Amino acid sequence: MTPGEPSRWLRGGERVLASTRVLELRSVRYRHPEGGPERDFVVAHAPDWVNVVAVTPGGLLVLVRQFRFGSGGLSLEIPGGVIEAGEDPVAAGLRELAEETGYRGGSARLLGSVHPNPAIMDNRCHFVLVEGAAPAGPVKWDDDEEIEVLTAPVADVLAWARSGAITHSLTVAALMFFEGARRV
Amino acid sequence: MTPGEPSRWLRGGERVLASTRVLELRSVRYRHPEGGPERDFVVAHAPDWVNVVAVTPGGLLVLVRQFRFGSGGLSLEIPGGVIEAGEDPVAAGLRELAEETGYRGGSARLLGSVHPNPAIMDNRCHFVLVEGAAPAGPVKWDDDEEIEVLTAPVADVLAWARSGAITHSLTVAALMFFEGARRV
Repeated sequence: MTPGEPSRWLRGGERVLASTRVLELRSVRYRHPEGGPERDFVVAHAPDWVNVVAVTPGGLLVLVRQFRFGSGGLSLEIPGGVIEAGEDPVAAGLRELAEETGYRGGSARLLGSVHPNPAIMDNRCHFVLVEGAAPAGPVKWDDDEEIEVLTAPVADVLAWARSGAITHSLTVAALMFFEGARRV
Repeated sequence: MTPGEPSRWLRGGERVLASTRVLELRSVRYRHPEGGPERDFVVAHAPDWVNVVAVTPGGLLVLVRQFRFGSGGLSLEIPGGVIEAGEDPVAAGLRELAEETGYRGGSARLLGSVHPNPAIMDNRCHFVLVEGAAPAGPVKWDDDEEIEVLTAPVADVLAWARSGAITHSLTVAALMFFEGARRV
């Protein structure tokens, strides 16, 4: 432990509070490393997610708009979804892009990864950049998915992410990473 | 409904799957507006949150580093927390900033708001900009909080948010909004 660094608590046992299709809510016991208290913390366990920044050869970014059952409204986002067990994040990104929008990519690579919420969630969200994206087949939506596919110039989408016109925090964060990659 | 726009489902009843200190997991019934199916969706209900971009008169940004029980590791973030019932987001931001870091602000205003996860959460996270922030008193941590307070030049923090050195998605998104406000 570096001087001044906060303590890293030690993880103990856990019990499941509720198990659902999208996440499992757990109570996890942690112990302070310096013989301190033991406490239970709520952790939402979920598989890793992937979000895809897909750019066409003409410099347009591929967006999706759909009804979201958490917020109860329409949301403008980049494509994305749940990574399957054992699936590579880049492969998952290309799969989600194709399923949700019908677009397929030229090249694809990992832009970076975040914790959607390190305070209460244990998973990560990976951001994948797909360049040379073009319409290449029918969409393949999940049950209950009904998705509007749009494209817009990169500069416009970045401005929407900075101004609050895009409100999904993971889409905003992905576009911050994308902006970083463009400056290198 | 605009032509081509995805359907807005109608919210029906709900039942609580698990109730905890930080969120309540619910199963919410939704009905497709065109006489379609009724389905149950998992929604995590939580109070709104606030995250604070606090800048000193010398152009340094105030950061916190703490152990996070979701990710099980240390995380570099901007200050933030839960907005109390009836509390104004800007007031909540100033309160969280003072409690976590001991810094108080000159002026404060709302930068914008996001949905942390509109797919499965119903709350919002508000981003507050505090300018003229300066150390002004003792911290007041919650139980189990142990926070390292740091400052760094704005340009460095923005670069960390673009490069993956900061992994909390809400901090990254807040810095994207902050960057937008600086360009106006």
